[in-house]
Amino acid sequence: MTNVNAILDSSAMRTAFFISDSTCITAQNLGRSLLSQFEFIPFKQVSLRFINSFDRAEEAMKTVTTAYQSDGAKPLVFSTLTSESMRTIVSSAPCEFFDLFEIFVTTMERVLGAKSVPTTGHSHGIQDKEEYFERMEAVNYTLTHDDGGNLHQLDEADIIIIGISRSGKTPTCLDLALNYGLRAANYPLTDDELEDLQLPKVLLTYKHKLLGLTTSVNRLVNIRSERLPNSRYASVAQCSYEIRQAETLFKRLAIPYFNSENMSVEESAATIVDMIQERTSTS
Amino acid sequence: MTNVNAILDSSAMRTAFFISDSTCITAQNLGRSLLSQFEFIPFKQVSLRFINSFDRAEEAMKTVTTAYQSDGAKPLVFSTLTSESMRTIVSSAPCEFFDLFEIFVTTMERVLGAKSVPTTGHSHGIQDKEEYFERMEAVNYTLTHDDGGNLHQLDEADIIIIGISRSGKTPTCLDLALNYGLRAANYPLTDDELEDLQLPKVLLTYKHKLLGLTTSVNRLVNIRSERLPNSRYASVAQCSYEIRQAETLFKRLAIPYFNSENMSVEESAATIVDMIQERTSTS
Repeated sequence: MTNVNAILDSSAMRTAFFISDSTCITAQNLGRSLLSQFEFIPFKQVSLRFINSFDRAEEAMKTVTTAYQSDGAKPLVFSTLTSESMRTIVSSAPCEFFDLFEIFVTTMERVLGAKSVPTTGHSHGIQDKEEYFERMEAVNYTLTHDDGGNLHQLDEADIIIIGISRSGKTPTCLDLALNYGLRAANYPLTDDELEDLQLPKVLLTYKHKLLGLTTSVNRLVNIRSERLPNSRYASVAQCSYEIRQAETLFKRLAIPYFNSENMSVEESAATIVDMIQERTSTS
Repeated sequence: MTNVNAILDSSAMRTAFFISDSTCITAQNLGRSLLSQFEFIPFKQVSLRFINSFDRAEEAMKTVTTAYQSDGAKPLVFSTLTSESMRTIVSSAPCEFFDLFEIFVTTMERVLGAKSVPTTGHSHGIQDKEEYFERMEAVNYTLTHDDGGNLHQLDEADIIIIGISRSGKTPTCLDLALNYGLRAANYPLTDDELEDLQLPKVLLTYKHKLLGLTTSVNRLVNIRSERLPNSRYASVAQCSYEIRQAETLFKRLAIPYFNSENMSVEESAATIVDMIQERTSTS
């Protein structure tokens, strides 16, 4: 293997393309995950979405070629293009073409003993209208049950997330609604509740749906400081007090909880989905 | 190739597993996209997330083995596991193992002339605290600028989506905020505005940020009927009137717009990101 520093010195910034006939979300995710294994090499990252016609494919091919010319090095292309002819056009550009699709389809045909029937990038499309409506309803529910704004219809909630201010409740609930179709209510713990280690009665009625969200003092201070710098609200003393009280309350009432420090919203949401599944399967 | 019907008759339901050391989002997306090429074969789909310890890997291996025993056919396993030892454990189960990771890393090492430095599933993690804060602020902005609730601070908006009731504005804006860190305001066209083909002055000040969202009569009737069945609001006459007027208004004021029928929220959001990029690059 070549010495890393030599690479960094000898080459200009390289470009990585994510190319898809649809939203590019899958190509980006897998491509970025792969690039992160080489994070000592800097890449300019470009997404080319909806490459679903010959014109668009020609255009993409030219864009890749231009990057090659200006970088002086072949771009990496991560493609989830499902159409063979689109792939042929794009991969004719001077590039390292990573076909995230074809290689697996061929193996699947062998394993399943059946020929594939090409359908364009439908991993994110509307396959199921029912599911679409469900998600929209989940988003509506979540919006009207954000930040303790509405303690009615909690019987319809799939989950009720509780935590202190800025612990990440709202974005996590929205992700649960948008991506999993879950009706996720959330409730911010008040000063009195933190002091008395109590919850409103209505929440205790749905105790089996409660889930606590917590974070680290450091992160909370950072997040709160973005909003109200140098305030008591964002102080280390106040943040550590609130986190300590919240965790004591969760333990005392036997409410499951987890620390979302170092987690992205997507990771928190996926963790919660797992917790719900485990709850359902053991109850 | 075997006859499709023969496969369907001779085999029980097979299981497809999506396995990851992180949220499983990439494995699911690419796996589902691959399975959709064989949609005539029904699969039970199971996600195993956060497989990031030997215990969890052993557990996953056993789960796959159990599925093999009850299905009587090898499950397909779509894995984005980055750790070689975890992969070895899981793939020792009787299964068809699709390694969405390793195969590309090896090629990338050759192409880049450098050895990879394994980092666990960070395509969704918090790589960048700045980016995390930005997204949280975008979510806050979007929530306070939902449904025309607030026409202040529109100078801070990255995009202002306008459309009639239930055309998909809110979930699309939330997706733009959560997944792209964009501050997305939205404004519902009122009856008067639809009749007079006018917009409030404050919106026209930010005309370069406006984007129209529209849909088909059929879809709108369906969505509105879910909420208010048999109402005037959900009638074909009212829905087609509103869509026609909205499109006339967009054209008259030269506001770019698109029809989100048949698009998932993710696809609408990705389309908008593309439109913003094009706008920025041509302006």
